[in-house]
Amino acid sequence: MSDKKLHIVPLGGLGEFGMNCMAIRYGDDIIVVDAGMMFPDAELLGVDIVTPDFSYLEENKELVRALVLTHGHEDHIGGVPFLLSLMNIPVYGTAFTLALVERRLEEHELLDDARLNRVSPGKRIEVGPFSIEFIHVTHSIVSAVALAITTPMGVIIHTGDFKIDPTPTDNQLFDLHTLAEYGKRGVLLLLSDSTNVDRPGYTPSERAVYPRLEEIFNRAERRIVIAAFSSSIHRLQQILDLSAEMGRKVAFLGRSMLSATEIAHNLGLLQIPDNILLRPQDIMGAAPHKVVCVVSGTQGEPMSAMSRVAVDNHKSLSLERGDTVVHSARIIPGNEKAIGRMMNHVARRGAEVVAGGMNPPVHVSGHASQEELKLMLNLVRPRFFVPIHGEYWQMSKHAALASHLYSYGLEESFVLETGQVLEVDQAGARKNGKVTVGRVCIDSGSIDEVVEDMVIRDRRHLSEDGFVIPIIAIDKHTGRSEGLPEIVSRGFVSTEDRADLMTAARQVVARTIESSSSEERTDWGVMQEKIRADLKRYLGKQTQRRPLIMPVILEV
Amino acid sequence: MSDKKLHIVPLGGLGEFGMNCMAIRYGDDIIVVDAGMMFPDAELLGVDIVTPDFSYLEENKELVRALVLTHGHEDHIGGVPFLLSLMNIPVYGTAFTLALVERRLEEHELLDDARLNRVSPGKRIEVGPFSIEFIHVTHSIVSAVALAITTPMGVIIHTGDFKIDPTPTDNQLFDLHTLAEYGKRGVLLLLSDSTNVDRPGYTPSERAVYPRLEEIFNRAERRIVIAAFSSSIHRLQQILDLSAEMGRKVAFLGRSMLSATEIAHNLGLLQIPDNILLRPQDIMGAAPHKVVCVVSGTQGEPMSAMSRVAVDNHKSLSLERGDTVVHSARIIPGNEKAIGRMMNHVARRGAEVVAGGMNPPVHVSGHASQEELKLMLNLVRPRFFVPIHGEYWQMSKHAALASHLYSYGLEESFVLETGQVLEVDQAGARKNGKVTVGRVCIDSGSIDEVVEDMVIRDRRHLSEDGFVIPIIAIDKHTGRSEGLPEIVSRGFVSTEDRADLMTAARQVVARTIESSSSEERTDWGVMQEKIRADLKRYLGKQTQRRPLIMPVILEV
Repeated sequence: MSDKKLHIVPLGGLGEFGMNCMAIRYGDDIIVVDAGMMFPDAELLGVDIVTPDFSYLEENKELVRALVLTHGHEDHIGGVPFLLSLMNIPVYGTAFTLALVERRLEEHELLDDARLNRVSPGKRIEVGPFSIEFIHVTHSIVSAVALAITTPMGVIIHTGDFKIDPTPTDNQLFDLHTLAEYGKRGVLLLLSDSTNVDRPGYTPSERAVYPRLEEIFNRAERRIVIAAFSSSIHRLQQILDLSAEMGRKVAFLGRSMLSATEIAHNLGLLQIPDNILLRPQDIMGAAPHKVVCVVSGTQGEPMSAMSRVAVDNHKSLSLERGDTVVHSARIIPGNEKAIGRMMNHVARRGAEVVAGGMNPPVHVSGHASQEELKLMLNLVRPRFFVPIHGEYWQMSKHAALASHLYSYGLEESFVLETGQVLEVDQAGARKNGKVTVGRVCIDSGSIDEVVEDMVIRDRRHLSEDGFVIPIIAIDKHTGRSEGLPEIVSRGFVSTEDRADLMTAARQVVARTIESSSSEERTDWGVMQEKIRADLKRYLGKQTQRRPLIMPVILEV
Repeated sequence: MSDKKLHIVPLGGLGEFGMNCMAIRYGDDIIVVDAGMMFPDAELLGVDIVTPDFSYLEENKELVRALVLTHGHEDHIGGVPFLLSLMNIPVYGTAFTLALVERRLEEHELLDDARLNRVSPGKRIEVGPFSIEFIHVTHSIVSAVALAITTPMGVIIHTGDFKIDPTPTDNQLFDLHTLAEYGKRGVLLLLSDSTNVDRPGYTPSERAVYPRLEEIFNRAERRIVIAAFSSSIHRLQQILDLSAEMGRKVAFLGRSMLSATEIAHNLGLLQIPDNILLRPQDIMGAAPHKVVCVVSGTQGEPMSAMSRVAVDNHKSLSLERGDTVVHSARIIPGNEKAIGRMMNHVARRGAEVVAGGMNPPVHVSGHASQEELKLMLNLVRPRFFVPIHGEYWQMSKHAALASHLYSYGLEESFVLETGQVLEVDQAGARKNGKVTVGRVCIDSGSIDEVVEDMVIRDRRHLSEDGFVIPIIAIDKHTGRSEGLPEIVSRGFVSTEDRADLMTAARQVVARTIESSSSEERTDWGVMQEKIRADLKRYLGKQTQRRPLIMPVILEV
């Protein structure tokens, strides 16, 4: 056997939520598993999209053989256009995953050149020294897979995102058998989803939502409007089935909802009962007790269909007293207030709001809870274990959860953070070095509009206390300042109320200039710094605020 | 009977979370129930505290007789200093509530003149035409009360915040009997807490936390560190009791924790077992398996004790491998990421993190669920009902929950929003008009530092795309511009990368000036607007961004 080493290089998603991306390297061959994005924190002001920093892959561009996708959620595929614009490598995924990727590539005009390769669960692809088997798993999106990556050093199991749903709505059972076989033959390394590690027991089956929806359907006397993730094809299937049973027609609203249902239907993943669809323009004409509307925009996004419906600004649907609006989705942390506001608008129109953590639930998680995670560990029985897809504390907990396996061949668990390399060779496994990682902030979804950290820092500063800009005109012949300095300011204090403050501030700047030596006055940099310091001290004392101060010296 | 009317005037907390405040007026007498604050949304940039707009009370200053407080949470007392600085009215509350108020008044140097009056549950005060009885309720803070306000028009029951805990840890049972008596005699109006209206069943008793803590204590082999709200005296009592039983000593860390425990202990509300307290400076010297630390800062606030402990920057406590850190508090929406980051730091030090929605829980809510809300409605059996303390959709749901009472004397439920007046007279009740309400944004906690909406709007604009300021020097003799305009910019694009953009932008401004008529050029306002419009169009096209553009014309 060669002395080549295996490197596991997490480029995103370990220790942070979103933008999952991992490089697996053996010698001079690299494959990439997933290339996700994340929606920015509130503190990333003005930024629309965040992707991983792909520097490591760019530096090793010649060695990168393929991108392999586990499933079609944004945090796994949202970065694909940005990665492919750097290197046009072949992409492997299931049909549904690739259909979602196609849509994003089209938006960025990258589709024509892309090399997309469909792989069915149960099939295997060969990429350089890697042989990769796609293993069907259950998750909140259809066509999700785990990967069994056979390398010259041994087998790596990458779970992707999963739960172990014993009764999936499409009857496509989790492929436990294949995992069991790998486990029996011996697995070098398990990489497993840590999202719900703090939940005891089992995550309820997707079917748990059905009785609750049934109850809502039974009670509703008028229109039922359901806000759901467009990629939750299982959920949409249940809504269609129930509607058929109850004699209601279904209208899909929202761009992503229409596109996802069309894709899923074309691929045979969504069964649409005969004559059940209602065109959006026919909603208001149909008898209210015969209508179900399934609408995208679960997170209160301002321009989404559901947000527009809530404020009665949607061309096809106008809520009326007695309608029922169901929020059948997870609340992504940070969106509570936006969703609350949306639901207030709904309630103001007299519609009933159904949401929240009821039992039975109107939403169930797509991620495995503790007992499922243990089942995964026990089936795979790896030699090494690396928790993935979680915050640091969740991955730590996941590592602790695996400790019972030390009696069954587990040698070590490693809690890695994004950028930290795990090296595996004949002698064993160890953390070894770091690679450049980080986040790339993108302003308006265009590949070019990368926002630098400095700009974001400035925005943060501006957002807290605004700016104050003293402008000093200097006569280029005499080198003397002309008249009293001007000061412009926004976002700092209400200038009407505080005209006196601004007048005093102008005096402060004038005094700074007067009290400077003629030598200092010839050096603009020195003068700017002196003015900034004096003004900062003065304004801080007067207002306890620290606006961004940026003196401008104009030579006239 | 006179023809005076009763007015219910919500000044905060109806349709929004936080800053609860309600005026109750009969003829020429007004009382105020609670004066809370809220912590600002992320979108209120740079703002530290938000209080209600008290304009209605200021306009009727001569009529305001008293402020009555239901309990000591920030969203009920945080605005007291701001209200008292406008009008020094007498304040009524339980001893513990007033002790917390005293602390805030002291910070604002308002304590000496304040007129604070302690009222025990079960006692009654007379204020103008109102007779107000304090009724003991159970909630997550001790010494919480509902108010029975007898007016010439009839009795109003204001629940304050409550749950109906059948087994409170201090054995102070919810005073159902008094409520029942009022209900039997006849209640005009019920105002009831809507926070948990979407939760079916009953909220678990505070005691439900005990078995879970017990399990953690049994398993922990080293230090136990518990992050808790300092005002959760019941929770602290349970921790003290359990520590005594398990032979551990307890150290309290954090300014608010030390102050709240001292207040509660002095008032006999917190029983501290003999010899159980450990001084902070003795923590690291004590045997780790004999130590419990109770720490304030549950929401990841950057300067709190718990945040400092997490990054190993607290002078008394340094986390070590094998310690257990318990998050025994609600996560206030918006704080998920900050708390996650804090817990990641804890996990990096090798401590185990215990948090989240386990069963049994490490935290229970202090607000009533559906069955408790129905019990309240059935006990009080009001003629009119106004849900309070919730978002609009929650109050709507609460109103719907009361509909079974129409057969038992309920005439009407009103879903009011802050500012909307309910009028009650001999003929009945109706919404009647609005008063000025709103939020007052305060920058640094000082009463003077009110931030105007315009300033916040500017900060929001600046936070998204920064600013661009073209500066044009105009010769005051000739009226002509001198040289190429300057442009200064921050938070917009990285100026190094885009020097060409800025050069082009200067040309755009120069062209705008050149192409203007001499008449236009004499009017600075017109020129500023033209420059702004042209530059906005140009930069928008080049970058898809909309910075704040503020042309400055300097006469030199």
